[in-house]
Amino acid sequence: MNDHPVLRRIGLVAKRGSREALATTREVAEWLGRRGCEVFLDGATAAELPPQVGAAADLPAANLDLVIVLGGDGTLLSVARLMGDGAPLLGVNLGRLGFLTEVGRTELYPSLVEVLAGRFEIEERGMADVDFRPAAGEPRSFRALNDAVIAKSAVARIIELSLSVDGRPVTRYRADGLIVSTPTGSTAYNLSAGGPILHPALGVTVIAPICPHTLTLRPIVVPDTAEVEAVLESAQELVHLTVDGQEWTDLAVGDRVRYRRSSVTARLVRASERTFWETLRGKLGWGG
Amino acid sequence: MNDHPVLRRIGLVAKRGSREALATTREVAEWLGRRGCEVFLDGATAAELPPQVGAAADLPAANLDLVIVLGGDGTLLSVARLMGDGAPLLGVNLGRLGFLTEVGRTELYPSLVEVLAGRFEIEERGMADVDFRPAAGEPRSFRALNDAVIAKSAVARIIELSLSVDGRPVTRYRADGLIVSTPTGSTAYNLSAGGPILHPALGVTVIAPICPHTLTLRPIVVPDTAEVEAVLESAQELVHLTVDGQEWTDLAVGDRVRYRRSSVTARLVRASERTFWETLRGKLGWGG
Amino acid sequence: MNDHPVLRRIGLVAKRGSREALATTREVAEWLGRRGCEVFLDGATAAELPPQVGAAADLPAANLDLVIVLGGDGTLLSVARLMGDGAPLLGVNLGRLGFLTEVGRTELYPSLVEVLAGRFEIEERGMADVDFRPAAGEPRSFRALNDAVIAKSAVARIIELSLSVDGRPVTRYRADGLIVSTPTGSTAYNLSAGGPILHPALGVTVIAPICPHTLTLRPIVVPDTAEVEAVLESAQELVHLTVDGQEWTDLAVGDRVRYRRSSVTARLVRASERTFWETLRGKLGWGG
Amino acid sequence: MNDHPVLRRIGLVAKRGSREALATTREVAEWLGRRGCEVFLDGATAAELPPQVGAAADLPAANLDLVIVLGGDGTLLSVARLMGDGAPLLGVNLGRLGFLTEVGRTELYPSLVEVLAGRFEIEERGMADVDFRPAAGEPRSFRALNDAVIAKSAVARIIELSLSVDGRPVTRYRADGLIVSTPTGSTAYNLSAGGPILHPALGVTVIAPICPHTLTLRPIVVPDTAEVEAVLESAQELVHLTVDGQEWTDLAVGDRVRYRRSSVTARLVRASERTFWETLRGKLGWGG
Repeated sequence: MNDHPVLRRIGLVAKRGSREALATTREVAEWLGRRGCEVFLDGATAAELPPQVGAAADLPAANLDLVIVLGGDGTLLSVARLMGDGAPLLGVNLGRLGFLTEVGRTELYPSLVEVLAGRFEIEERGMADVDFRPAAGEPRSFRALNDAVIAKSAVARIIELSLSVDGRPVTRYRADGLIVSTPTGSTAYNLSAGGPILHPALGVTVIAPICPHTLTLRPIVVPDTAEVEAVLESAQELVHLTVDGQEWTDLAVGDRVRYRRSSVTARLVRASERTFWETLRGKLGWGG
Repeated sequence: MNDHPVLRRIGLVAKRGSREALATTREVAEWLGRRGCEVFLDGATAAELPPQVGAAADLPAANLDLVIVLGGDGTLLSVARLMGDGAPLLGVNLGRLGFLTEVGRTELYPSLVEVLAGRFEIEERGMADVDFRPAAGEPRSFRALNDAVIAKSAVARIIELSLSVDGRPVTRYRADGLIVSTPTGSTAYNLSAGGPILHPALGVTVIAPICPHTLTLRPIVVPDTAEVEAVLESAQELVHLTVDGQEWTDLAVGDRVRYRRSSVTARLVRASERTFWETLRGKLGWGG
Repeated sequence: MNDHPVLRRIGLVAKRGSREALATTREVAEWLGRRGCEVFLDGATAAELPPQVGAAADLPAANLDLVIVLGGDGTLLSVARLMGDGAPLLGVNLGRLGFLTEVGRTELYPSLVEVLAGRFEIEERGMADVDFRPAAGEPRSFRALNDAVIAKSAVARIIELSLSVDGRPVTRYRADGLIVSTPTGSTAYNLSAGGPILHPALGVTVIAPICPHTLTLRPIVVPDTAEVEAVLESAQELVHLTVDGQEWTDLAVGDRVRYRRSSVTARLVRASERTFWETLRGKLGWGG
Repeated sequence: MNDHPVLRRIGLVAKRGSREALATTREVAEWLGRRGCEVFLDGATAAELPPQVGAAADLPAANLDLVIVLGGDGTLLSVARLMGDGAPLLGVNLGRLGFLTEVGRTELYPSLVEVLAGRFEIEERGMADVDFRPAAGEPRSFRALNDAVIAKSAVARIIELSLSVDGRPVTRYRADGLIVSTPTGSTAYNLSAGGPILHPALGVTVIAPICPHTLTLRPIVVPDTAEVEAVLESAQELVHLTVDGQEWTDLAVGDRVRYRRSSVTARLVRASERTFWETLRGKLGWGG
């Protein structure tokens, strides 16, 4: 375990709409206060709790030493995109075991003791810059910790995409869509679509077609320094670009999406000895 | 080849919006007229062609001996649902080789000669009754030749479905959706989602999850006499039921979809010696 | 539950080499004796137990009312092939939950009480005739309850097979091998190779290539009345035909394997209300 | 294109047992001689040709500037393992398009003109050290350009393996076997077993189970600096370790196989502008 500066200014973010997360946030705030920490809350959390729990703050700007996220992987994804390479994040899982939020409810206070004592590691997780370049209208940029997904809407017609890597054409194909994912996101939607599991330390991007018509079109792994570009070539219905399953925009024919590793890296606090493989075994029900 | 009655009253349906299909329809109508046949057109085709080409008619009611469909598999699907077990259908493929419309452009007149001479077979293809039973509102029924699909819209959140067969619970799962398919539909969306190829003569239904979270959830084949029921258990976004990729309705939480073999069977005219396996080899690029 | 004749002459088969199976066999034999049943043992089981446990008998010839198999799915497969459509089989699972042997250790005596009282059903399971027709040498026939597998040996070169159904060529392909399976076998090797789950009541055969070079070659389901023929077209190493994972023969280039539904049907005793879906949920770890 | 030294000492290797490869080798040797090059042949090729074609030489020791391999991907794999990071290799494909041997028959002399003029690039391809550590007996080491495969023999029983990465246990599982592959090998056996396509420039290793019983066990990508270790935990039959499909040894229970990136890198001559994606499109039949 590394040496870390003293953690004094601590942010708390509760899962939206979860009473349990709010109650736990309150408890944790008191616990931290008793240990001399200063507690800050993101706006939405602050709005649901009495003012004495903590000061509302603009988290990325607040010069924090640590942000504790109480919820699940979804909440952690949204905070990670928001924080970029600011304060490290400690994910506390109030439901099922998560890939990102490995501290469970019962390990919460023992883990906090370790973390406040500086006994933790910071795991860097690559993020991606996702640039939406419409044929007409304003470009827009997103940051992703898991994935960027281009997908048709529910009516069962297909869309046509063309794919290139570093400006070189890969293929043009018909499918339900496309998932471009970081190693962190490889165990999310990518896995359901038949993509491989990527060790989180890898500098790679995985591109997985969703239900392609061309049965030989398989998941492709490229360096994360490569620029992956997808163009919507045809569609008879609504198509969306979705980032981390949480932010989205409509796609029209001719619109481009460019995906490339971001210079910004999410920083996750690891307070346990649990390996990536142990988490996988638990989540995927592997024996052994 | 079997004995067939003389084919005198012949319907023609052109693919919507295709000039080529309309031009070919006109040619075929004249060709048939010269051979003493009476030609009828469905309303949409009639609206695009001069009245001397053929009389507009309500095809299912018109007591026809044969319906020739000029377009692709999509047009044939829509005519098959409309005709039910009425007149047999001859699909003429104006584009790429189809699974359903096996007569290609160059084989058109030789095939018509054979068919008018009674040298053809009728292949029965099982259809399905798809009953939409909403938690609130009017039930609605569809007929399917290919498949019924329940799918989430483009934003990358998942839906939760429960599945039962003949009233016995199979599983409850999270996924992008579900495809319930006839043997005829097995080579369509089902194949892209990882389902097996079913010989068209089989009396079975295949149930294929779309990108399930549970990686052990695999395509399941059941008797086509079984009633397959799916219930939408939760969804954070728009969900649709789509039939043959052509008709659809919105699904809300609590809505049920029941799928079962129809008493109605599509009747396809087979004028060639081409086997199902030859069509597969051509469409899927198998060697050998 | 149906009416059944009184079960008096009962055969017992213990898993080879399992002390636990032998001990349980002895217990069950005594329990049956106390209830007035006459107990018979297959030769291998008899050889391991004292003579008072039961008479050694040629089971298929012994005119039995019931055969109880103590072991796992593997033992039940071998007894099913041996018994054909003779006495019904009750599988007692001494290890993990099986697909075929659904009575677990703790349910053993309660289930036997039900069965002796005639409260059970007989489930017919289709078997297959597997005919090995070598280019040179003696033909040989096997019976299969699960599957017939053609597979290369361990050295990682591939073999080439051609496949036909009812004498019509399907494809010729390079792969590790081929699995031809009954519905009962669909949840065994077929599932590991990407094949679908088939409801056990279906009259179908599933053909699944093992690691094919042609990525579009997918599992195919055909009627079980069809004759599936595979010919070994080329091989640089040893190839085997294996039946139910238990019996085998070498295959040389030019050898043919024909697979077709047998007139013989395995008869399994079902004493529980557990559905096929419940067994699947347990074995595959499906939620819900 | 880079600057390269003048290529004067050139080795030629013909595919074993191929008359066409020998005839082309002879032609190429004369062509090179007329351009002032000195030609060397590996022992097996020299044994099949008259002495004036070229001198037999121990290729890795012969201080060559270039080795031309006339055959297919298989021949190139064997020469690459032999040469290590010695002279660069130019693969000439006499049959179907290969992944490694991209110069086809018709491009042969134009490509040689370019190469002799120094207009080519050298592509480095990572190789692996595969160490076989038996529970009893002599350890043995292999070098791989494609993959190391542990697989059961043809009889359809399964084996049990445990897998660890950098000494940390990943899982223990039952399957037909395991493929551990370089990016170069990802389009070979790995692809047939469901693994992803890896861009050849990546510093990664892909681990793909072959037909695992655990359906959630999916291909895993790890850094190529990681040590992947597999232990054969149980087997009821013959098991082999095979390297590049060409070299092998028997495996017994308790034997270990360690796989890690080699310090040696294969060096392939690229004389065309064809991208990896173009090769993929051609080999996999992708549209677009």
